[in-house]
Amino acid sequence: MVDTRFPVSVHIMVSLAYHQNELMSSDQLAKVLKTNPTFIRKLVSRLVEAGLIESFRGKGGGIRISKDPAAISLKDIYLASLEEKQMLCTPNKPITKACPVSCSMQEILCGIVNGIEANTHAYLDKMTLSDLLKKVSA
Amino acid sequence: MVDTRFPVSVHIMVSLAYHQNELMSSDQLAKVLKTNPTFIRKLVSRLVEAGLIESFRGKGGGIRISKDPAAISLKDIYLASLEEKQMLCTPNKPITKACPVSCSMQEILCGIVNGIEANTHAYLDKMTLSDLLKKVSA
Repeated sequence: MVDTRFPVSVHIMVSLAYHQNELMSSDQLAKVLKTNPTFIRKLVSRLVEAGLIESFRGKGGGIRISKDPAAISLKDIYLASLEEKQMLCTPNKPITKACPVSCSMQEILCGIVNGIEANTHAYLDKMTLSDLLKKVSA
Repeated sequence: MVDTRFPVSVHIMVSLAYHQNELMSSDQLAKVLKTNPTFIRKLVSRLVEAGLIESFRGKGGGIRISKDPAAISLKDIYLASLEEKQMLCTPNKPITKACPVSCSMQEILCGIVNGIEANTHAYLDKMTLSDLLKKVSA
């Protein structure tokens, strides 16, 4: 029931934006966020794939933000962190053919779930990482 | 990661609205929805508590919708089914006091999560159970 992929990804991105000129490691992030390093590495790799951060391998390597925080919307982070799995899900059960409600339900539920997602995307698209950064107390 | 409380509650409500003048049992619903009866009973009891359906005990008892479907919004169903647990959750980790990002993050994340929730409520408040009922093929 508890999905922390998006909040933890936001935390990672704000941390990297705050330390914009430094290279950080996933282990450093895991320590500060007090979160399982495997989970952090998984989210970091999605953020890299989405082009929001870049990763340098080897000694002295690490990760850093790859864009201006003002050019990264919370929708970008949301989509990267949730990948193909939406927050809400329609139950994938076989249809009871004799029941008109059952026959129509998959389409009805998909409509609602996609509507909620699109509405959330539009909301998050209005906020940037740079807006969040301003809220970090100096 | 997969949260079906809301979609399954919508399915229950559409079924009850479709069979508006009949009493149904949780077991009947579980059979048609092909879902665990304990899960159905839990959701039914939340919908009863929210005043959206009414339950009659004893022989010949059952549940039925307690209001006009046009007077039940999807927000009502959403709030009843999710109870106090929101879809998104802010990680409840101890703060790393030396880190300004960590110190501000709880407030930043709460703001985002509450904003998403309020945005979803506003979206769902515009749709009623009666709108869904019209989409059930005759």
